[in-house]
Amino acid sequence: MDRRSLPSQLPTGVTIYLPDEAARLRGVQDALMDVFRLWGFREVMTPTYEYFDVLALGTDEALQERMFKFVDRETGRMLALRADVTPQIARLAATRLRDRPKPYRLAYRTNVFRYEEPRVGRQREFYQAGVELIGLDKPEADAEMIAMAVESFRRVGLRRFQIEVGQVEFARGIIEGLGVERTVARALRDALERKDAAELGRLVGELRVSGATADALLGLPTLYGRADVLGRAGALVGNARSERALASLAEVHRLLAAYGLADWIMLDLGEVRGFDYYSGIHLEGYAEGFGAEVCSGGRYDHLLERFGAPEPATGFAFDTNRVLLALAAQGVDEVAAGPELFVIDFTDDKTVALGLSRRFRDAGYAVCRDIMTRPLAESLAYAREIRAARALVIDAAGLARGEVRLLDPVTGHEEAGSLRELMESPARTFQPAGGGARA
Amino acid sequence: MDRRSLPSQLPTGVTIYLPDEAARLRGVQDALMDVFRLWGFREVMTPTYEYFDVLALGTDEALQERMFKFVDRETGRMLALRADVTPQIARLAATRLRDRPKPYRLAYRTNVFRYEEPRVGRQREFYQAGVELIGLDKPEADAEMIAMAVESFRRVGLRRFQIEVGQVEFARGIIEGLGVERTVARALRDALERKDAAELGRLVGELRVSGATADALLGLPTLYGRADVLGRAGALVGNARSERALASLAEVHRLLAAYGLADWIMLDLGEVRGFDYYSGIHLEGYAEGFGAEVCSGGRYDHLLERFGAPEPATGFAFDTNRVLLALAAQGVDEVAAGPELFVIDFTDDKTVALGLSRRFRDAGYAVCRDIMTRPLAESLAYAREIRAARALVIDAAGLARGEVRLLDPVTGHEEAGSLRELMESPARTFQPAGGGARA
Repeated sequence: MDRRSLPSQLPTGVTIYLPDEAARLRGVQDALMDVFRLWGFREVMTPTYEYFDVLALGTDEALQERMFKFVDRETGRMLALRADVTPQIARLAATRLRDRPKPYRLAYRTNVFRYEEPRVGRQREFYQAGVELIGLDKPEADAEMIAMAVESFRRVGLRRFQIEVGQVEFARGIIEGLGVERTVARALRDALERKDAAELGRLVGELRVSGATADALLGLPTLYGRADVLGRAGALVGNARSERALASLAEVHRLLAAYGLADWIMLDLGEVRGFDYYSGIHLEGYAEGFGAEVCSGGRYDHLLERFGAPEPATGFAFDTNRVLLALAAQGVDEVAAGPELFVIDFTDDKTVALGLSRRFRDAGYAVCRDIMTRPLAESLAYAREIRAARALVIDAAGLARGEVRLLDPVTGHEEAGSLRELMESPARTFQPAGGGARA
Repeated sequence: MDRRSLPSQLPTGVTIYLPDEAARLRGVQDALMDVFRLWGFREVMTPTYEYFDVLALGTDEALQERMFKFVDRETGRMLALRADVTPQIARLAATRLRDRPKPYRLAYRTNVFRYEEPRVGRQREFYQAGVELIGLDKPEADAEMIAMAVESFRRVGLRRFQIEVGQVEFARGIIEGLGVERTVARALRDALERKDAAELGRLVGELRVSGATADALLGLPTLYGRADVLGRAGALVGNARSERALASLAEVHRLLAAYGLADWIMLDLGEVRGFDYYSGIHLEGYAEGFGAEVCSGGRYDHLLERFGAPEPATGFAFDTNRVLLALAAQGVDEVAAGPELFVIDFTDDKTVALGLSRRFRDAGYAVCRDIMTRPLAESLAYAREIRAARALVIDAAGLARGEVRLLDPVTGHEEAGSLRELMESPARTFQPAGGGARA
């Protein structure tokens, strides 16, 4: 077997996370779940695969196309790997939780699966962590999502970021108020989505609309910025639907200001991505130095009714893998610490090593034992490889004097330690006076 | 749509974990990973699906049969969901880690997938957490696995348990020393596996073997117990292979005694399950009150060579779902606490609620806000439902006096709290004198 060919035997779009990478990913998951917990959200865990037709009920066609599907050996029905957790949670809210008092605050951290062309930060198996807030239609619920997204950015360690907040009903009020055919409305949305001002101008020119309506359409892409957007948008529109949308966005903005979060927020009323999925306030979070959105979400008041129990709902999710790339882009990806202690035992009977290791572990220190028989230099090289903070050497000569040796694996600095003192007080090993510090 | 039919639309053998259930499962995973970390093991994360032929290389045929397989849309090759993590880790050790200094101490916590008839504690998607120690052939490595298994049982909260430790080479030395045909050897193993003394006696009676060999075969099922097993086993056998196996088991037992763990260990030299997979010391962990093994593992020195890089290896895994069932059987499954604070705000502007919530979250308390407009009694019912420790009521009348009200949602006990004091020192809310305690 040619071993060099083996690593490429992984399918396209899946990843092996070696210890440093896994520690980073788990660290981001833990940070996000901690934020979610502090806001009263509790984790649910959904099946990795389900019947395709059941998943499809809550998934748009473009995503259905990209699902991994396979036949259930037992029933002959089509199964699929989950491509999105939100429909699973919407269904369980509409079924198993249906009779419990609302609202539901539910969170998740898991992998999802999509046939996609692998690109930066997006594999075919990738990780998400998010929340769903089900049963509330008030702006406060939307503001809670955005405030949590801000807190999540901070907690994972991304210091330079921005949340773009929009309201799909605003543009809908303008476009659907035109009373044009669907193909025309679609063309307008496409031009808006591409921020293609020339095409937008051409399309608007072909419409027989008032000057005010034309101004509103042409003005949409400019409705991006701080609180001033609210005033500019209000001056552009006269239809009731857009005005309601604007009022809800204004209230969300007021609440975010009360949270002290206005600085992180950019309003964006020209954004029409997610137009089909979302029904109100939506958000996208960007980290400086990373081109794609790191989190996204919004209000989806019409999803639960597909599962037979209409409820308003909002939520957001972070793409955990993109968080890692954004952290790297901002230079804040830390390397995880190794074990506190690496025990090298040259005695035959090992009893002292076992007892010492246990004492240290009971005190909460990670201890790794060198079970291989090899020269001290090789053991220390290994201790450096695993980034152990200290190496502890036990040999018969030292034991006769009640001593072990403590070494810094990197500098080689060595000192004698009293066996009795270490047994009584493991923490002394890591006190500054002892020449090291707990990682 | 008939909503009552929806819950049964889940495929056989998958589970939705609602918040309490998810919290228990994550709690067990965290406890196990914490033990693994304290022993110097680091997590790796492997793909959920891979090419079937690559996974099959490290998997026996019976398990290959039970894998979920599907065709890769892109390459037309067969993919499969992982049914076991050990072969994935063996391969990555043999490939991507190959040139790093050994040993490798690797851990995992994840789901695996097998077509099985669902039964107590075993779904088709279920969770495991385990470790692999690769590159060490010494009894100390085996003892480390067993000591970690003991520590894992303790850490997850199972107090009454037992680890059965065997050595497959001992029985192999006897059976393969007979020089009988494979079918006869197989029949002997089957009888031993079923602990079928009558059938074993019949089979041994048909063999033309010395009295000593017959005694050894018939004695195998009796070799179960404490340290005395070692002496009894030694008296039964004369072949070098069994003697070496016994010596390694004796050394492992000595090390476990040095760890202070002998009380948890039962030796079992008559156990032949896992005979094909394991190559030396193996272990199975049982919890009192639960019928199936909760953890299992052992030495598998011949797996890595299938991936082109022979290395000795040992490991074990806990079945996380079975841990939960065993905890329930022992009456130690705890219900997770709800948020510390549930904020009910009757004011229009909500600014005080937002500020207070933020202060409490910054201090590490989970805070859930009641965004719905409803009577206080309903809000308190909801607070009980989510098991909030305290409810904090903000209304305009109280605010005029600089006060909020603190309620125990269960007893209804109410007292006034100073807004300023709560802002300055959130922890005071949960001090015993304040009528409550942090959950």
